[in-house]
Amino acid sequence: MISSTVLFYGNYVLCLCLGLLCVVFVSYWNIEWRGGFAWDASFLQFNWHPVLMVTGLVVLYGNAAILYRIPFTWSQRKQHWKLVHAALLLSSLILSILGLCAVFDFHTGYHIPNLYSLHSWVGICTVVLFTAQWLLGLVGFLSPCSPLGFRKLLKPVHAWMGMAIFILSLASCLSGINEKLLLALNGNSNSTAAYSSHPAEALFANFLGVLIVAFGLVVLGILSNQRWNRLEPGEESSRSLLPEDN
Amino acid sequence: MISSTVLFYGNYVLCLCLGLLCVVFVSYWNIEWRGGFAWDASFLQFNWHPVLMVTGLVVLYGNAAILYRIPFTWSQRKQHWKLVHAALLLSSLILSILGLCAVFDFHTGYHIPNLYSLHSWVGICTVVLFTAQWLLGLVGFLSPCSPLGFRKLLKPVHAWMGMAIFILSLASCLSGINEKLLLALNGNSNSTAAYSSHPAEALFANFLGVLIVAFGLVVLGILSNQRWNRLEPGEESSRSLLPEDN
Repeated sequence: MISSTVLFYGNYVLCLCLGLLCVVFVSYWNIEWRGGFAWDASFLQFNWHPVLMVTGLVVLYGNAAILYRIPFTWSQRKQHWKLVHAALLLSSLILSILGLCAVFDFHTGYHIPNLYSLHSWVGICTVVLFTAQWLLGLVGFLSPCSPLGFRKLLKPVHAWMGMAIFILSLASCLSGINEKLLLALNGNSNSTAAYSSHPAEALFANFLGVLIVAFGLVVLGILSNQRWNRLEPGEESSRSLLPEDN
Repeated sequence: MISSTVLFYGNYVLCLCLGLLCVVFVSYWNIEWRGGFAWDASFLQFNWHPVLMVTGLVVLYGNAAILYRIPFTWSQRKQHWKLVHAALLLSSLILSILGLCAVFDFHTGYHIPNLYSLHSWVGICTVVLFTAQWLLGLVGFLSPCSPLGFRKLLKPVHAWMGMAIFILSLASCLSGINEKLLLALNGNSNSTAAYSSHPAEALFANFLGVLIVAFGLVVLGILSNQRWNRLEPGEESSRSLLPEDN
């Protein structure tokens, strides 16, 4: 049991470090190579899009998803941690919506159509599902008049939808970084640094993609380990009988 | 128990239909809009790349991953199904390697550098991990001299790596479809149908991406449901004690 807890905290620290690196890398990419930030419907407003999506939809969301798995929280009232979970996810949702506003404003400013690429289709579906999931979670798990039977029915759907949204957010971010590099490096005829010539920006942003993959796999690894599930009342006996391999 | 089995087969049929649709859609896209297929280092050889990757790395791989979850197989000797699992994954691996050959040959023919985009980085990592996973699985689970202690140690790592490889293959395919459409529709100055003008090809290929997402989520849903795990000897009692919500 001790080794399982130590293993959890090892994964948790790795997850925190990778998440921090993702935020630092996505910010540095947009400051160093894309001209920094503004909120004026210019291409500098677009630069908020990757930063807000990676920070909100990947890093904050991933950390909120694994909150109940922290053994330190198991001895405490679940209601408090439900509020922390909901607050973290609300911050994540607000950042994601701001990230969408950044790209929609930029498109309007430059007369670029919205939602044409596969990246944008996957991305918008992710945020719509996330909004529905957050609202349903609020009604189902935090509203005092939500019946116990409904909560029991909702819980596996909520957990599964939560994982699905996270996987979609990873796919959106990876395809988005790829799309941005193709459009910015190949689309500009004045640019001497096409994506295929391995310029420093491309290597750096590709490495950001690798960091996002690593962060995502650590979060999904923590979520898929049944031994790190918070025990609900009456589940003590089942934990000890879980097969070693799951 | 009956309703759980019926629910499984409902998901399984959905998974088969979505997988078939993915193969049909990726083939039709390349026949109708990309000129069809050849193996002559031309752009027609490149067209094998999406078809072989979606068929091998997503559809065949996904079906191999959920093989042990089919209740029909539970009463039969696991050794037979291990061989079917390994054979399906070997077919998937061969198709994926052929898919990589298609793109490398095309790049050589047109003097395009290899492995410059984030899509290619994630894709090559996926195939390398898949190769290592298949070889380790062969040694660990099919070799008669593999010790039982090693198998027990390897099994959770094998299951987790299998899921991680599948998620990476989904992300690779989505970013690859996005990249192909950006390069083919925007990169050709003779083309009157830029990606952002919503041409029929773009809508069709984006919809292929949606089908891949749907297939992936059904497979991951089946894998994450503990009630559809094949019971190993001595696990009968633990199944009945698994919490309802996981």
